[in-house]
Amino acid sequence: MADIVPLHKEEPRGLVLREVSGNVLRLTLNNPPANTLSIAVMEALAGELDAVAKSDDIRVVILAASGALFSAGHDLKELTTHRADDDQGRAFFEKSVRLCADLMLKLNRLPQPVIAEIDGLATAAGLQLVASCDLAICTDSSTFCTPGVNIGLFCSTPMVAVSRAAHPKQAMEMLLTGETIDASTAKDFGLVNRIVPKQYLQQVVNKYAAVIASKSPQALRIGKRAFYGQAEMSITEAYDFATGVMVENMLKSDAKEGIDAVLGKRTPEWKAE
Amino acid sequence: MADIVPLHKEEPRGLVLREVSGNVLRLTLNNPPANTLSIAVMEALAGELDAVAKSDDIRVVILAASGALFSAGHDLKELTTHRADDDQGRAFFEKSVRLCADLMLKLNRLPQPVIAEIDGLATAAGLQLVASCDLAICTDSSTFCTPGVNIGLFCSTPMVAVSRAAHPKQAMEMLLTGETIDASTAKDFGLVNRIVPKQYLQQVVNKYAAVIASKSPQALRIGKRAFYGQAEMSITEAYDFATGVMVENMLKSDAKEGIDAVLGKRTPEWKAE
Amino acid sequence: MADIVPLHKEEPRGLVLREVSGNVLRLTLNNPPANTLSIAVMEALAGELDAVAKSDDIRVVILAASGALFSAGHDLKELTTHRADDDQGRAFFEKSVRLCADLMLKLNRLPQPVIAEIDGLATAAGLQLVASCDLAICTDSSTFCTPGVNIGLFCSTPMVAVSRAAHPKQAMEMLLTGETIDASTAKDFGLVNRIVPKQYLQQVVNKYAAVIASKSPQALRIGKRAFYGQAEMSITEAYDFATGVMVENMLKSDAKEGIDAVLGKRTPEWKAE
Repeated sequence: MADIVPLHKEEPRGLVLREVSGNVLRLTLNNPPANTLSIAVMEALAGELDAVAKSDDIRVVILAASGALFSAGHDLKELTTHRADDDQGRAFFEKSVRLCADLMLKLNRLPQPVIAEIDGLATAAGLQLVASCDLAICTDSSTFCTPGVNIGLFCSTPMVAVSRAAHPKQAMEMLLTGETIDASTAKDFGLVNRIVPKQYLQQVVNKYAAVIASKSPQALRIGKRAFYGQAEMSITEAYDFATGVMVENMLKSDAKEGIDAVLGKRTPEWKAE
Repeated sequence: MADIVPLHKEEPRGLVLREVSGNVLRLTLNNPPANTLSIAVMEALAGELDAVAKSDDIRVVILAASGALFSAGHDLKELTTHRADDDQGRAFFEKSVRLCADLMLKLNRLPQPVIAEIDGLATAAGLQLVASCDLAICTDSSTFCTPGVNIGLFCSTPMVAVSRAAHPKQAMEMLLTGETIDASTAKDFGLVNRIVPKQYLQQVVNKYAAVIASKSPQALRIGKRAFYGQAEMSITEAYDFATGVMVENMLKSDAKEGIDAVLGKRTPEWKAE
Repeated sequence: MADIVPLHKEEPRGLVLREVSGNVLRLTLNNPPANTLSIAVMEALAGELDAVAKSDDIRVVILAASGALFSAGHDLKELTTHRADDDQGRAFFEKSVRLCADLMLKLNRLPQPVIAEIDGLATAAGLQLVASCDLAICTDSSTFCTPGVNIGLFCSTPMVAVSRAAHPKQAMEMLLTGETIDASTAKDFGLVNRIVPKQYLQQVVNKYAAVIASKSPQALRIGKRAFYGQAEMSITEAYDFATGVMVENMLKSDAKEGIDAVLGKRTPEWKAE
């Protein structure tokens, strides 16, 4: 039976598409129309992130989505199906929510910077993905919400990311009313960095990625890890920690090269990681 | 003597007025002209909050004020009177400041969302009240300040709430200069959510309240408690905590009803608490 | 030999200029053109801050800079020279970064409020200085960046201050791209309080200083210390702490004077510290 091979085998289209261009990896959620974060999608994305975390070649990751909607968050149909389980779904809900939270922490802990590229609606855990990326760039028609209150399921895990990006009253307005905000409000709230017309979205995101990919990979890795590390310390602890980070960074080859280059008015050449 | 009853007994007007409309409770500070937070006012408001905390019928609380000024904060005359006490007022000052801080924590801990409705000036502990509500909506002529430095009494307790709403330099500008900011600046600082013309203030606040009151009371309670709980945790702890909250929320009747309703394209019917 | 005195001895110009006007001390970085934070500059500034911390006369400090650039941060030439040391510079790098971090903590801990007066570029540890002052006022042509990624040395210590002023995505955009932001963006990010035309910079800064210097020195000292103390506490701890601070403040002479003055509709007279 092993020798029975279909004549025109369709290339399987994954739930998360992967495209490498130079040092930049583009991951695209590919579960349209809503790009829901089903177990399969979350496992596929987590797998991609685990793989890229070990890569020395990839310097920046872009997280995009197929179709007209960035992501609607958890897959409600999948969750509902498991209400028929012996435990009314508890084990499955735990698996699903835990996987989602771990995915967000993976984004924080990924050595490479991650840029979310958003065109369309990002809701609930879909917005959580946006808020968990290091940077986010969206089209002017993109919208954002945490609509859990509308279905009796408060967006408590998305809140972790959203409330660390925005002021408390801003986060609370989204969480309590469930109403949708536009791109401009999302920028005011600190949820996105930049708003661009739809026809320029990829171009602008790619330019950000190229700018970041041109920097020392050593410095980017040291810096991203230090950023999230120090964020939760007291200022005195943070300075102790960051002082140690700076000294080690100074002793790395790229800092020597970069400083020599700037003093010599030439372009630095970063060491391959 | 008990039978001597005044012919035209005035209805006593409380220091905090209470008005229920459907599932919404409106509490109105009624100590004009400055709505100072005297011991009596704070005790009245704390009593109302304690009562509503136990209510299953009330889903949203509005905190408003009578007259042209939202609240001027502590009652300086009352405080000053107690300088004549044996301890120069220490015990009374402790009672007053502690009562005020507890009032703010009560707002955070109240199961129901609280919307501040502001028309006019909110200063010192009056601004602290605004900052301690979950949401705040004000008229375009409302103003805000922490003027303690002008009277040698730095607004150290209002600072706790204000510095958790605004960026540090923004909070510091208010605290060090004591100067008054307008509604637009207060919105930029994250102290208010929305600015509306005076003639629409109640209408807009009532609409916000109605929107929130239409959501699952179960979800609102779970979510508000989780919001303030996770805010002070590390991100890893916050995700552990919020994951547990989400799973329990999924197993509640309203989440089942809400998700069934959205999948069935019908309006959910929330369980009475 | 002691009697050989030069006929026209040049007045030595220090690396940090010092000018007292009433209760306001103006410190000016004077290491043009880039006002780099060499060891000598940092030691001079630290010395000035240590001295003013003990002064009862100075109520406000202004931190300005000579020339067209506020400060370019660490002195890269000085750091590079020490790569020739037996330890490749480690001990010197540690001394330099530690001195810089301690300088920032000194600004936080200084009893007097500090206003940064910026005209021109503030980069890396130069921006860290701005972010570490209590208030910051800049010209409309001022610019800001954390360009460490360009030289392989991530701005990990500036990040401690910048990430405590701005939203995380805003801080990350500066840190990961190294790109320069304008004054208006810096105000949005919470890095500066006010933007003024160049010809009014000193006038506006001096007015802020005069306003703050007119307040009770007792209250300012109590308040600034409390601000940074409570910022790192849970809200419950912060209220316990701030309640104690308020009660002690109420029992000080200036609070008595200030409250008596406002109730008596007269101008308060603060006790000399």
